[in-house]
Amino acid sequence: MKESLGPKVFGFPAPVFMVGSYDENGKANIMNAAAAGTCCLRPPCIYVSLREATYTYHNIMLNKAFTVSIPTEDQVVEVDYFGIASGKEIDKFKKVGFTPVKSELIHAPYVKEFPVVMECNLKETINLGSHTMFIGEVIDLKVEGDVTTTIPVKSDIKLIKVDLEKLRPLIYDLSLRGYYKLGEKIGNGFSDGLKYFKK
Amino acid sequence: MKESLGPKVFGFPAPVFMVGSYDENGKANIMNAAAAGTCCLRPPCIYVSLREATYTYHNIMLNKAFTVSIPTEDQVVEVDYFGIASGKEIDKFKKVGFTPVKSELIHAPYVKEFPVVMECNLKETINLGSHTMFIGEVIDLKVEGDVTTTIPVKSDIKLIKVDLEKLRPLIYDLSLRGYYKLGEKIGNGFSDGLKYFKK
Repeated sequence: MKESLGPKVFGFPAPVFMVGSYDENGKANIMNAAAAGTCCLRPPCIYVSLREATYTYHNIMLNKAFTVSIPTEDQVVEVDYFGIASGKEIDKFKKVGFTPVKSELIHAPYVKEFPVVMECNLKETINLGSHTMFIGEVIDLKVEGDVTTTIPVKSDIKLIKVDLEKLRPLIYDLSLRGYYKLGEKIGNGFSDGLKYFKK
Repeated sequence: MKESLGPKVFGFPAPVFMVGSYDENGKANIMNAAAAGTCCLRPPCIYVSLREATYTYHNIMLNKAFTVSIPTEDQVVEVDYFGIASGKEIDKFKKVGFTPVKSELIHAPYVKEFPVVMECNLKETINLGSHTMFIGEVIDLKVEGDVTTTIPVKSDIKLIKVDLEKLRPLIYDLSLRGYYKLGEKIGNGFSDGLKYFKK
């Protein structure tokens, strides 16, 4: 018998998306967004939901562009700091010793030290209440070579994919605000469920 | 030096949201959505991105309501089956022996065997291309007592929260289609980053 907890979200797991943007003076900022994810595959789109009180909200409204970087387990303290401090008052990159990199495709910076980044043009803005969704179309996915694996598809076609064992990404729990490691792989999508077709 | 992989999404981690809906004849259906997540806190909103080819797409368009249930590690085979089979051709509940429960709040069913469910009214529909986002406002979060923990806030106020150690939720990798367990907790949000304020 289920118990009612009222109108609340339990949106587990949440990603740890590091959102890069420029302010009106071209100062690079980075923040941590957990109400975020994938929303379309063709064209490839991701979103971040932000409160209007954030510096990044106004930067994205201004420039219609942002980046999303994916950090790793050993960057959890810096990641959390980027979610607490405000770029209005401080240069967060300088504070932790990270390096902003200017995108050549869009007007937004990304973070050299994070191994995966998506450069996005703003596609849709949807105000839902406390949070506004910024839906970005991904113009390019860039990755460090040491977090990828190459999968042969045909003799002349190879897929380069991010390897989770090498990346060691973070997972966030919005409910109790915890950062977690990825655990053991226990299944394969579009595969394990096939056994019910044979029954 | 980062390598360009082109316009692609790496939206890790993805949730395993089990979407419940009724068709025009009142038949209950359930499907698996990974392009999904939290998009607002006040009002509480979640979304699922679906292709128009899915049965659930048309059910949500018709009824303007859906549920999202959260499954557990030991349900990975059923979960994957719900993502492969189509409710057009088969009663997925009967096939795996799961039980549809009629929501008392909205016109959509949820799954008795999944320990957490959110009942949602459709708030916004956004067509992005291959996928359409269905944004739902959560009317109620319901949970089984054996996956919660009670946190005392004041002498007369207690918070009931989902306990991840008891729930044992699934995590999905959209990129290589793997299901994963949750790993070790390695940090606390709005806490670990405070050390940079003291520097």
